[in-house]
Amino acid sequence: MAGNSFGEIFRFTTWGESHGPSIGCVVDGTPPLIDITEEEIQVYLDARKPGQNRFTTQRQEADLVKIVSGVFEGKTTGTPIGLLIENTDQRSKDYGDIAKKFRPGHADYTYWEKYGIRDYRGGGRSSARETAMRVAAGAIARKVLDTQIEGGVQIRGALVQMGPHKIDRTRWDWGEVNNNPFWCPDPIAAKEWETYLDSARKAGSSLGAVIEVVASNVPVGLGDPVYDKLDADLAKAMMSINAVKGVEIGDGFGTAAYSGEENADEIRMVDGKPHFTSNHAGGILGGISSGQDIVVRFAIKPTSSILQTRKTVTTDGEEAEIFTKGRHDPCVGIRGVPVGEAMMALTLADHWLRHKAQNR
Amino acid sequence: MAGNSFGEIFRFTTWGESHGPSIGCVVDGTPPLIDITEEEIQVYLDARKPGQNRFTTQRQEADLVKIVSGVFEGKTTGTPIGLLIENTDQRSKDYGDIAKKFRPGHADYTYWEKYGIRDYRGGGRSSARETAMRVAAGAIARKVLDTQIEGGVQIRGALVQMGPHKIDRTRWDWGEVNNNPFWCPDPIAAKEWETYLDSARKAGSSLGAVIEVVASNVPVGLGDPVYDKLDADLAKAMMSINAVKGVEIGDGFGTAAYSGEENADEIRMVDGKPHFTSNHAGGILGGISSGQDIVVRFAIKPTSSILQTRKTVTTDGEEAEIFTKGRHDPCVGIRGVPVGEAMMALTLADHWLRHKAQNR
Amino acid sequence: MAGNSFGEIFRFTTWGESHGPSIGCVVDGTPPLIDITEEEIQVYLDARKPGQNRFTTQRQEADLVKIVSGVFEGKTTGTPIGLLIENTDQRSKDYGDIAKKFRPGHADYTYWEKYGIRDYRGGGRSSARETAMRVAAGAIARKVLDTQIEGGVQIRGALVQMGPHKIDRTRWDWGEVNNNPFWCPDPIAAKEWETYLDSARKAGSSLGAVIEVVASNVPVGLGDPVYDKLDADLAKAMMSINAVKGVEIGDGFGTAAYSGEENADEIRMVDGKPHFTSNHAGGILGGISSGQDIVVRFAIKPTSSILQTRKTVTTDGEEAEIFTKGRHDPCVGIRGVPVGEAMMALTLADHWLRHKAQNR
Amino acid sequence: MAGNSFGEIFRFTTWGESHGPSIGCVVDGTPPLIDITEEEIQVYLDARKPGQNRFTTQRQEADLVKIVSGVFEGKTTGTPIGLLIENTDQRSKDYGDIAKKFRPGHADYTYWEKYGIRDYRGGGRSSARETAMRVAAGAIARKVLDTQIEGGVQIRGALVQMGPHKIDRTRWDWGEVNNNPFWCPDPIAAKEWETYLDSARKAGSSLGAVIEVVASNVPVGLGDPVYDKLDADLAKAMMSINAVKGVEIGDGFGTAAYSGEENADEIRMVDGKPHFTSNHAGGILGGISSGQDIVVRFAIKPTSSILQTRKTVTTDGEEAEIFTKGRHDPCVGIRGVPVGEAMMALTLADHWLRHKAQNR
Repeated sequence: MAGNSFGEIFRFTTWGESHGPSIGCVVDGTPPLIDITEEEIQVYLDARKPGQNRFTTQRQEADLVKIVSGVFEGKTTGTPIGLLIENTDQRSKDYGDIAKKFRPGHADYTYWEKYGIRDYRGGGRSSARETAMRVAAGAIARKVLDTQIEGGVQIRGALVQMGPHKIDRTRWDWGEVNNNPFWCPDPIAAKEWETYLDSARKAGSSLGAVIEVVASNVPVGLGDPVYDKLDADLAKAMMSINAVKGVEIGDGFGTAAYSGEENADEIRMVDGKPHFTSNHAGGILGGISSGQDIVVRFAIKPTSSILQTRKTVTTDGEEAEIFTKGRHDPCVGIRGVPVGEAMMALTLADHWLRHKAQNR
Repeated sequence: MAGNSFGEIFRFTTWGESHGPSIGCVVDGTPPLIDITEEEIQVYLDARKPGQNRFTTQRQEADLVKIVSGVFEGKTTGTPIGLLIENTDQRSKDYGDIAKKFRPGHADYTYWEKYGIRDYRGGGRSSARETAMRVAAGAIARKVLDTQIEGGVQIRGALVQMGPHKIDRTRWDWGEVNNNPFWCPDPIAAKEWETYLDSARKAGSSLGAVIEVVASNVPVGLGDPVYDKLDADLAKAMMSINAVKGVEIGDGFGTAAYSGEENADEIRMVDGKPHFTSNHAGGILGGISSGQDIVVRFAIKPTSSILQTRKTVTTDGEEAEIFTKGRHDPCVGIRGVPVGEAMMALTLADHWLRHKAQNR
Repeated sequence: MAGNSFGEIFRFTTWGESHGPSIGCVVDGTPPLIDITEEEIQVYLDARKPGQNRFTTQRQEADLVKIVSGVFEGKTTGTPIGLLIENTDQRSKDYGDIAKKFRPGHADYTYWEKYGIRDYRGGGRSSARETAMRVAAGAIARKVLDTQIEGGVQIRGALVQMGPHKIDRTRWDWGEVNNNPFWCPDPIAAKEWETYLDSARKAGSSLGAVIEVVASNVPVGLGDPVYDKLDADLAKAMMSINAVKGVEIGDGFGTAAYSGEENADEIRMVDGKPHFTSNHAGGILGGISSGQDIVVRFAIKPTSSILQTRKTVTTDGEEAEIFTKGRHDPCVGIRGVPVGEAMMALTLADHWLRHKAQNR
Repeated sequence: MAGNSFGEIFRFTTWGESHGPSIGCVVDGTPPLIDITEEEIQVYLDARKPGQNRFTTQRQEADLVKIVSGVFEGKTTGTPIGLLIENTDQRSKDYGDIAKKFRPGHADYTYWEKYGIRDYRGGGRSSARETAMRVAAGAIARKVLDTQIEGGVQIRGALVQMGPHKIDRTRWDWGEVNNNPFWCPDPIAAKEWETYLDSARKAGSSLGAVIEVVASNVPVGLGDPVYDKLDADLAKAMMSINAVKGVEIGDGFGTAAYSGEENADEIRMVDGKPHFTSNHAGGILGGISSGQDIVVRFAIKPTSSILQTRKTVTTDGEEAEIFTKGRHDPCVGIRGVPVGEAMMALTLADHWLRHKAQNR
């Protein structure tokens, strides 16, 4: 309950700071007899890894994951899965400046006030480094879904807005997502973003973004009204990611401007089964998955560490200015895509197991 | 864990359907020796009560709350508080039509598929009637906050958008909120909305809305990173309310379009204490309250029950048309304001107790 | 988490005090489509009901249970089941004496110190009256087990020791349990206990007891090592019953005196399936059910309210003597039998649902 | 919820198997600013460590604990504390025999049936090796109690029965506990046990034991009725330890034979404060600590791995005989003493934080 676990039946707990010796997690509740290898987890970690191009932080982390328990002879045993990643890039540097000054937009001030102590080396626990373990745990969640649900569950993410620039949704092509460094499904937007982000980076500034994650082939029936609705848990999952400031399901805030007849998705019979003729609801009705694609979007604020001087105060109550040198992502939202996918997988895996429990 | 409880230490569990004999809840974890009366709870229920003007459903419910345990001689005893409301308006009517047909936009289809059975009398458990118990529990949460936090915590809500029409935030006046039936803080917008909603109502249509809830005087330090961040739990709280499709904190989705220097709130010393010069963050940094106003907004889709014919299917797999007569809210978002306030109070009260637990 | 809930997936929460208007509970997580009626629950409440003979308290309670939600047209709907019992025997009396004095052996002192307030009317929340709701919830748990497990699960309890007098286990006959007011499976012991308890009652004294609860036809595989082992959760379940001071599984404390070869149950093949040749383990190995009978015993201390003068102190810190008049059970253990059975059913139902969740 | 976590606010989760590369745990919920070093934790691990004399298994484990997160510059930061121990003695051996045969009295059969897979190398997850992490986490729990409670909480354990031989309680001397290899507080019994255990060991047999753990200076008020009573959680804590078959509080099963006047502890005023004149209740009334010593006893069955041939069956359903060579504890109860102390500390620390949360 102290805040570092997520999920009820499929439950993972993370530990570790950005500049400690290692980070890790325990994934409890994985059903037994699922094939899983370090290589399968590594694929997702590699997608999130920093330092892959000029648009992400130049911190170099191998992010090599080790499975240290819960898997025997290549299969899960039903016991807790321990995962470990050594931190290799703990560059020794002078933290003197940020040790004393609260970086605006960061968690420095609130951690200091809440705990009275703060690991000031690069964010400590509040660093986005923690999200590596979400991605690793998410890889196991995907295996659970793919093994237990016929046809598997496909989970894909994309960047749909960078700064004020949105994609043109008519050009959406999932195949393009891996053709550019931004997870952008619109190839023309991707080109424009490149120029745009380069200029922000050179100006020492940073940009926000909006990410969309879509899960396909999710069975009808996941979600536990009225407080653990699937959308409620997805909202929590996404909002728990660093720098996220908003979450919406389906047409989200757009529905506020709809009329009742525009909004509600009608139903017809197709191939002998109920079929919705639209998906404004984003695949969730009354907090329960409807069998349509689950569609979640979330907004990530611009990186707070920028190469510009900002006004702040110190732990001693002195006014000060701060200039955060370092290796920062000009648009941290980019690396949020695999994290959003992981949180989708983790939420669905938990609700899948919950659903099985209460099956007739 | 089965979905009908919210909170960890200050935890409430609701039960009851829209057309059962009564609805109720248990509030567990309330500290002892807090003065509380049925009248104090009733105030908030009266604010949410249907049938008060032509803009809300004409269902007539007295919504009289009874405290049946946990309070002795006017004070909480630390034992579970039981609350009960009799359902008085269980109008006997022919449910034949909606008993068989899935109402588009409603939870009928997903409940049917998940559970294989559905209380078809007006929504059953998925009805917004359940939110009455959130408001009642929320009244107790407010007492906890006001009793234990010096100066109390002020929680206020407002409707900031009806259909596509937003308020003019420069005209925001909290004093206006109770001067119109919409909880609208902008008196000019309120006038316009009246005409607008009347025409939607007469057309048998419905409208969406956006609600903003603000909590003032919240202490620094509430929230448990990295999964039970205050904003993550608020997102879950608001998304769990019927018909909500999006949640944002502070400037929310707007931050995606900001640059880093526009977004991060700078800090100065004022009266010897750190003071943020802006509040784009909505009072939460790194998942922990910063002492500024907590600002949450959420979007409510238009009421799905409208006086227009819609395409659907039946439980027997037949295509059909449905026309939902009845006493519906043309803009259900209006009555969502006290519910949003209650969820804010409930989330804060839980995190306040969690914070106390881990105090040095 | 505040203490008034039990179970994780099949989870119930109770509320109410001995002298409030009513007591109740919410049972959350019941699978849908299970037939259940008030009459089926009432059977178990009647077995626990006080005032049935001279060996139990003469408080007269009809203990009539009402289902107020979660059941529609005779079947569970998967939504929370609300249960209510009105308190009919709230005899108005002068509580002056016990309002101020802490009754030795009772929870008066600790509630007072913990909460700073106490509902002094007959124990309030700490009264055994609360166990009526355990029995009611237990009836639903039995239905879950009997509906979902082939052949059903049989749960039976017996009193195996009254005061220092144990039954002769060679005379054990489950058929005798309902032939005497003590749930005693040994007819000769039952006769002797009658005389013995009568004399204790007349002397204004009280007696302790040991109860044994046995569950048959429990599937292999229930229990979640290493902290939510089935025996660990049963120990918690039984120890949570009022006045219980010890719990053991299988041969329990007796195993301490065994040698390794005496203790471990050997295995043979019988009818093509593994079969244990003895059951010292009480049906649980490594915290997981083995398919054998689950055997749990627990000790109940003598009723603390006796017709003898006892030394105590007052809420004002004065030394005093106390003589607790009233309608007390001379051996409260007797009425503990149906409560123990209920806690067994509730624990097994929860672990059954947990087991289903993690099935391959 | 999947079974590998304990506690609600002060919550730890363990992972790792007896023959994997390492074992570890995450302790979440530790208040910040508590001084803690690896050396302080190591003291308790050394007390539990195997291979220290001829009465414990000859497996050689250094059991060196590393703190990998949550502590910065020697102080807890309020973030999750990661602890790691490398397994150094993973002797390569032929597990062929026990890989196929279920060892009587072990969890082999139930794990196999539950999970369909089993790490057969020495017990895997069901091995007592897991308890090393309980002891490590327990060291942190002790620091929480000692830092936050005035005067600290003293937690001590002793072996009070080996096989059928009980200590003479009139000779109880805490000072003797470290003077013999058995944690025996009675020096004369300790001598006798030495001979007795030697002969059991030479015969290839094993012995059960009873352990008593006492916590002194525990504040009044810990425990959350009615399901999370302090005694209920202690019962769960102790029963979750490998091989434990019974738990009692205070006079435990003995109270069944008492009369009401013998059992209830009377109260007098001493130094202006209420003082119980006896402690049959073991320091808990109504599930809440009374300020007296908390006294818990638990029975540990004899080690199931013995050097004698036993009847069993194989995973293929063949009858077989098994003879478990290896390095086993002739009386595994001995090493259970520090584990019982740790579980006491962990339960009290969690309830201490819970109590703080609900303080007025």
